[in-house]
Amino acid sequence: MRILILGGDGYLGWPTAMRFSAGGHEVHVVDNYLRRRAHEEVGTDTLVPILGSLPERAAAWKEVSGEGIGVTEGDLVDWDLTADLFRSFRPEAVVHYGEQPSAPYSMRDRDHAVFTQQNNVVNTLNVLWAMREFAPDSHLVKLGTMGEYGTPNIDIEEGYLDIEHNGRKETILYPKLPGSLYHLSKVHDSNNIHFACRMWGIRATDLNQGVVYGIETEQTKLDDRLATRFDYDDVFGTALNRFCVQAMIGHPLTVYGKGGQTRGYLNILDTLQCVELAVLHPAERGEFRVFNQFTEQFSVMELAEIVQRAGKEHGLDVRIEPIDNPRIELEEHYYNAKHTKLLDLGLQPHFLSETLVESMFGVIERHKDRVITGAILPRDRWGAGAGAPSS
Amino acid sequence: MRILILGGDGYLGWPTAMRFSAGGHEVHVVDNYLRRRAHEEVGTDTLVPILGSLPERAAAWKEVSGEGIGVTEGDLVDWDLTADLFRSFRPEAVVHYGEQPSAPYSMRDRDHAVFTQQNNVVNTLNVLWAMREFAPDSHLVKLGTMGEYGTPNIDIEEGYLDIEHNGRKETILYPKLPGSLYHLSKVHDSNNIHFACRMWGIRATDLNQGVVYGIETEQTKLDDRLATRFDYDDVFGTALNRFCVQAMIGHPLTVYGKGGQTRGYLNILDTLQCVELAVLHPAERGEFRVFNQFTEQFSVMELAEIVQRAGKEHGLDVRIEPIDNPRIELEEHYYNAKHTKLLDLGLQPHFLSETLVESMFGVIERHKDRVITGAILPRDRWGAGAGAPSS
Repeated sequence: MRILILGGDGYLGWPTAMRFSAGGHEVHVVDNYLRRRAHEEVGTDTLVPILGSLPERAAAWKEVSGEGIGVTEGDLVDWDLTADLFRSFRPEAVVHYGEQPSAPYSMRDRDHAVFTQQNNVVNTLNVLWAMREFAPDSHLVKLGTMGEYGTPNIDIEEGYLDIEHNGRKETILYPKLPGSLYHLSKVHDSNNIHFACRMWGIRATDLNQGVVYGIETEQTKLDDRLATRFDYDDVFGTALNRFCVQAMIGHPLTVYGKGGQTRGYLNILDTLQCVELAVLHPAERGEFRVFNQFTEQFSVMELAEIVQRAGKEHGLDVRIEPIDNPRIELEEHYYNAKHTKLLDLGLQPHFLSETLVESMFGVIERHKDRVITGAILPRDRWGAGAGAPSS
Repeated sequence: MRILILGGDGYLGWPTAMRFSAGGHEVHVVDNYLRRRAHEEVGTDTLVPILGSLPERAAAWKEVSGEGIGVTEGDLVDWDLTADLFRSFRPEAVVHYGEQPSAPYSMRDRDHAVFTQQNNVVNTLNVLWAMREFAPDSHLVKLGTMGEYGTPNIDIEEGYLDIEHNGRKETILYPKLPGSLYHLSKVHDSNNIHFACRMWGIRATDLNQGVVYGIETEQTKLDDRLATRFDYDDVFGTALNRFCVQAMIGHPLTVYGKGGQTRGYLNILDTLQCVELAVLHPAERGEFRVFNQFTEQFSVMELAEIVQRAGKEHGLDVRIEPIDNPRIELEEHYYNAKHTKLLDLGLQPHFLSETLVESMFGVIERHKDRVITGAILPRDRWGAGAGAPSS
């Protein structure tokens, strides 16, 4: 199958590209190195070094595997580039990771908020229009996030909700109530994609993904030049990855607020499996299909305790230290999110265990000297008044 | 009260500005003349001539009424302009009409789709950020549209819906399922505004307005230089206004498809009343308040028949001619939209009558020679395949 990976230089994009290439598919990746530039801008960096540009990574993959991966270095906000790409490659599947992916980054200030929504909404509109014009039968697999749903007081279904109101029935898109302007950009995307399915008969699968953890995949382990990035900082890092780094360098695990915030989590290996399952079982023409892509629910405090126990096994003395929550979110809430559709397609989950955490410790230990300790504590706050003059 | 009107050169923005000014408020208007330029671009024009620039209109108002209206000619997508404006004027209420307002325009092609969403989403984000920074206690009155809801199979409530699911309860934003990328830009706006209320304590009222008809208000009638625009064309015109022009020039009334499409409608006089009621009764800090702003529901065929009857009284021979629907929408559907909140605040509706239609005929007759007949039939189609190569 011809598979186009948008955001192919990223944490998940690059391993996804190698996985499909190893599976015998024709793979082309696009990236504008936004994440690399944003890291420079905010003074952070991946823990595991990325050796070389995207063409260099593809060349290393060719050397190791014998398989080619096509590369475009460019920005999908540029319509001419997007149109040329779809016209020439004619993808059968489009895996869309190509967005500004950080909530704290989107909440820094006006410029970052507007950049995030503009970048994400416009590049996705371009992709939809390119599919309509040049690849109308192709299938869009779009990475969304469980964060779009927020923390409703009712069970979170997979994309749709059947309701009855005043004696009449309707099926609605599951309501979204996200907690950052980044998450809202994904909600806007989902609404636009749903529209393209309804109006133009586009096929789409929206993957509302949980928080991903893990460092290695079958392909990244083959060669240091094939490694994927690993972010642990306040802007691009996520809870479990950050906790593992904190444990390793003797920093207390910084739990935001009460730590009762509950979310879905999954291993990076399962991200690859899920995306593959979605691609190999495409949505119908005109179908907007939604999967909740995670394998387990944890509260932040539970995660911290898992890392603490694994640290003990590893001979580390790990403390947990609640800090002021920089975000505006419920710290104790009901949370019950359904996630059966990918299991029905054949997902074999890798559950979180202390063994896995310990294996992450091993990789982190190798790169410990690269940790930027000043970039772990939160620097951006969600509420009004951070630097804002009062009226 | 200090009232800032965004989009103050428009069909509704200009009469709103004069109405508040006449009511003794301090009024400032902003506009970048987008609508004037877009009309030139697509070869259409307002039926009633607009005599002069916004400063010239304000000068005429000063001459006629003795009251001043401040003017900024500029683009709210420009953050520096927006910030300066809020910093210096310090509005207590912000009435936001300042968006690309046409569904067909947004569906023309990729460029117009992206322009519409980028323009509307970014300028609204700028306004929210400026309120947060420079006028945190001010009240945003944002013009949305009933079209955001689409045509659900259940009653349309005013903004929120109480649901029960698996034995638990939640109140959600009423689901939206709009029919164009323009309408989606308004949905994105509403979601962003709701976020600003939740996170930053902004006060906001989202007015989901029906289709507005009518030409004159108390102030526009005072002087030809105070007239507001009147659009009847395929891109910026709306059903009733277009039908009246068609009747007057002997063109058949072009009903799209079966004509069972039912929507809410209101007189321009009631738009002014509703916006005034919203401004004078502001939302609470952190409240995202939603009103459905219309007074009556009609199907398109019912509207055509009203115009036909009024035409007969006026001595006109009016034919109704269904044409292929350029839009993708249900032509027969359930529709029951609630609209009690503005009535509760004191709205005194002006209902549509054949008398009103006849008075519109009078104004149209005066400007009949300005009708561009080539700009009445729809030129833009919603679906895929309009010029798109098949794969």
